[in-house]
Amino acid sequence: MGPGRLQALIDGVFAIALTLLVLDLPRPEGSTHLGHDLLHQWPAYLAYLVSFVTIGIIWIEHHGMMSAVRSINRRFLERTLVFLLLVSVIPWPTAIAADYADRGFSQARVAAILYAATMLLMGLSFAWGWRYLTTHPELVAEPARVAFPAGTRRAVVGGLVYLAAIAVAAVSPAASFSIDALVAGYFALSRSEVPGLIYQSAQSGDADGDGS
Amino acid sequence: MGPGRLQALIDGVFAIALTLLVLDLPRPEGSTHLGHDLLHQWPAYLAYLVSFVTIGIIWIEHHGMMSAVRSINRRFLERTLVFLLLVSVIPWPTAIAADYADRGFSQARVAAILYAATMLLMGLSFAWGWRYLTTHPELVAEPARVAFPAGTRRAVVGGLVYLAAIAVAAVSPAASFSIDALVAGYFALSRSEVPGLIYQSAQSGDADGDGS
Amino acid sequence: MGPGRLQALIDGVFAIALTLLVLDLPRPEGSTHLGHDLLHQWPAYLAYLVSFVTIGIIWIEHHGMMSAVRSINRRFLERTLVFLLLVSVIPWPTAIAADYADRGFSQARVAAILYAATMLLMGLSFAWGWRYLTTHPELVAEPARVAFPAGTRRAVVGGLVYLAAIAVAAVSPAASFSIDALVAGYFALSRSEVPGLIYQSAQSGDADGDGS
Amino acid sequence: MGPGRLQALIDGVFAIALTLLVLDLPRPEGSTHLGHDLLHQWPAYLAYLVSFVTIGIIWIEHHGMMSAVRSINRRFLERTLVFLLLVSVIPWPTAIAADYADRGFSQARVAAILYAATMLLMGLSFAWGWRYLTTHPELVAEPARVAFPAGTRRAVVGGLVYLAAIAVAAVSPAASFSIDALVAGYFALSRSEVPGLIYQSAQSGDADGDGS
Repeated sequence: MGPGRLQALIDGVFAIALTLLVLDLPRPEGSTHLGHDLLHQWPAYLAYLVSFVTIGIIWIEHHGMMSAVRSINRRFLERTLVFLLLVSVIPWPTAIAADYADRGFSQARVAAILYAATMLLMGLSFAWGWRYLTTHPELVAEPARVAFPAGTRRAVVGGLVYLAAIAVAAVSPAASFSIDALVAGYFALSRSEVPGLIYQSAQSGDADGDGS
Repeated sequence: MGPGRLQALIDGVFAIALTLLVLDLPRPEGSTHLGHDLLHQWPAYLAYLVSFVTIGIIWIEHHGMMSAVRSINRRFLERTLVFLLLVSVIPWPTAIAADYADRGFSQARVAAILYAATMLLMGLSFAWGWRYLTTHPELVAEPARVAFPAGTRRAVVGGLVYLAAIAVAAVSPAASFSIDALVAGYFALSRSEVPGLIYQSAQSGDADGDGS
Repeated sequence: MGPGRLQALIDGVFAIALTLLVLDLPRPEGSTHLGHDLLHQWPAYLAYLVSFVTIGIIWIEHHGMMSAVRSINRRFLERTLVFLLLVSVIPWPTAIAADYADRGFSQARVAAILYAATMLLMGLSFAWGWRYLTTHPELVAEPARVAFPAGTRRAVVGGLVYLAAIAVAAVSPAASFSIDALVAGYFALSRSEVPGLIYQSAQSGDADGDGS
Repeated sequence: MGPGRLQALIDGVFAIALTLLVLDLPRPEGSTHLGHDLLHQWPAYLAYLVSFVTIGIIWIEHHGMMSAVRSINRRFLERTLVFLLLVSVIPWPTAIAADYADRGFSQARVAAILYAATMLLMGLSFAWGWRYLTTHPELVAEPARVAFPAGTRRAVVGGLVYLAAIAVAAVSPAASFSIDALVAGYFALSRSEVPGLIYQSAQSGDADGDGS
C-alpha cells in the first residue's frame, strides 16, 4: 500500500487531538469574579500548553519519519493505529491533570502518574513504529534508511524520560509535571535535524514523498 | 466521479470518529480517591479500546476496498454515506456500553444489544458497499475485480458475527461484549491479505489509486 | 487561486459536522429502565438521521459543483465561508429539535421553525455560490458552464421548500419536521444527475478537477 | 520539507476550530418559553458569528501566505504550531464572551479583555510567521518574495487593532466587542488582494503551490 491515505488519517487524528484539547479548558459558570476565577485555573492552561506542544512536536517528528516511508503493510498500519490511539487519548489525562494538579498531594500524584504513563506509552508506540521500519528497510526510501536507527533511539529516549516523571510523581507531582513540560520544551527547542535529515535524504533519493 | 474527494471525506469521518471516542472517557469530578475512581472505570477503557480497534480495522479494510475503485456514481456515494453514518455513530453506543456494562443485568443487556446492533448494521452497510462494487465491476480496477466476491464475503461474515453477540446478550451481556472484543482482536491480528491483495492488483493494473 | 485547499477545508468541515451530530445523541444517565429510556428518545434519532442525510446530500451536490471550478477568488471564498458557517451550525438546531419536538406544541413549533430556518439559510447560501459561478463563468471549466443555471435552480428550489416547512410549523410542528425529512429523502433518492453531469463535462474538457 | 502535509494539518485545525464553535452555542434545557430563551441568547450568536468570520478570514489570509511557501524548516514549523495553538483556542474565549457579555460590567470587561487578548496573540503569531518568511526568502517562491513585507505589515496591523479593543474594554466592554466585530467585518469585506497577489505571483513563477 502507498502511504498517502494513511498520512491523511494521521494528519486528521493529530489535527483533532490538538483541537479537542480546548474543549477541556474550564468555562466558569455563573462566576461573579470572572478574572479571579480564570486566573485560578492556571493549571488547566499549563496542562493545555504542555499537551499541545507535545502533540505538535510528535507530529513534526512523525512527519519526518513518514516522509521516508515508500510503502506500508498491514503490520505497520496496525502499529500506527496503536500510536494514533495513544495520541488521540491525550486530551483525557490532560483534563484530569488540569483538574487535580492542585487538589492535594494524593490526587495530584495519581494525575501525574496517569499523564506521564500515557506519554510513556505514546512514546514507546512511536518508537515501535521507528523500529519496525528499521527492521523492514524495504518500506523506506533507500537513502534515508541509514538514519532510522538514530530516529529509533531518539524516540525511545524521548519516551523513557517519562519513566522518570512517573517515579518522581511518588515524591512530588509538581516535579513530575515539570519533567513533562521540560520534555516538550526540549524537543520544541531542539536543534536536532533528524527528521529534517530523513526528509532530505528521502527527497534526494526519489520522487516527492510528502504524500501530497 | 473520481474517488479522490470521497476518500478525503471518508478519512475525515474516520479520524473524527476515532478521536471523539475520547470525549466519552469519564473524567471523575471532585474525587477524593482518584486512583480508586479511575480504576473503577475499567469498563469505559475496555469499551474505548474495542471501539477504537474496531473503527481502525474497518478503516484499514475500507481503505483496501477503495484503493481499487476507479470511479464512483451517485448510488455508490449514497451507500457510502449510510456506511459513514454507522461509523460516526459508534461513539454513542460505546458511551452507553461504558456507562451501563456494570449497572446490573437488565441495563447491561440493553447496552450490549445496542452496541452489537450498531456494529451489525455498520458491518452490513460495509458489505452493501462491497456488493455494489462486485455487481458494478465497471467502477473497479480490472485486475482487482476478481477479489471482490471474497471481500464481500469477509465483510458479511464480519458483520453477521454480531448477530451472535446480540443473541448471547439475552443470556450474558459480558459474553456479548467479549464477542465484540474478539471480533476486533481477530481482525486486528488476522493475516488475511484481502485488502492488500486488492490494493496490489489494483496498482499493477493502472495508475496510483491511492487518491493522493 | 486553485480550488485544492478550499476543497480540503470544505471536506473537513463536512466530515466534522457529520460526526459532531453524534455528540448530541442523548446518553441517559443513571437509568434503571435503559431500554425504555432509549426508545423514548426516538425524536433524537430521527433528527440525527435527517440532519446526517441532509448534510451528506449537500456534500454530494456541493462536490458536483466544485468539481467544475477551475479557479477561485476572494469573493467566492467568502460566499463559501458563509455556506460553511450554515453547514457547521446544523448540529445546534438539530439538538434543539431533538430535545423539544415532543415537549408540547409551542416549544415544538419554535424548534421546527429554527430547524427549517437554518436549512433555508443554508440552502440559499448554497444557491448563492451556484449563482456566483453562473455569473462568473471564467472560474468554471468551459464544458460545464452550460449546466450551472440548472444547478442554481435546483439549489434555490431545494432551499425554498424550507419556506413551506416554516409556514407549516405554525400549524403543525410534526408536519414541518416531516417536510424536512421528505426533502432529505427526495434528494437522497433523486435520480437527478446534475452534479454528475457537471462532473463529467468538467472532466471531458480538461485535466482532473477532483482536487486530488 | 515540502509544505504539503503541513497544509493538511493547518486545514484540519481550521476546519475543526470552525466547527467546534457550534458546541458552545447554548442549548436551553427544559425551557417552557423556548422562543424567548433562544432570543435571550443573542450574545452567543454574535460571538459565534464574529469568531467564525475571524477564523475564516484568517484561513483565507494564511492560505494566501502558504501558497508562496516552497519549503519549510523546523523553525517555521514551530512558529506555525504556535499560530495553530492560538487559532484552536479561540472557541474558549468565545464561549466565555458569549456567557458573560451580558452579566454585568465587571464580568463583561474580563471576557472582553480575554477575547481581544487571544485575538491579539493569534494575530501576532500570524505576523511572526510572515516575518520569518520575509527574513528567510529562500523558503518562498521567488516572484512572491517582494509581497511579503506588505503581508507582514497587514498581519501586524490586523493584530495590533486588538490592543485598542483591550484598552477600550476597561471603559466599555460592548465597545470592545464592537471593535472585534469591526475587524472581522473589515477583513471580510476588504478588497485587499495581498493574498491573491502572492498566490498569483507564486503561480507565475513555478509549478502549482497549492499543495494539492
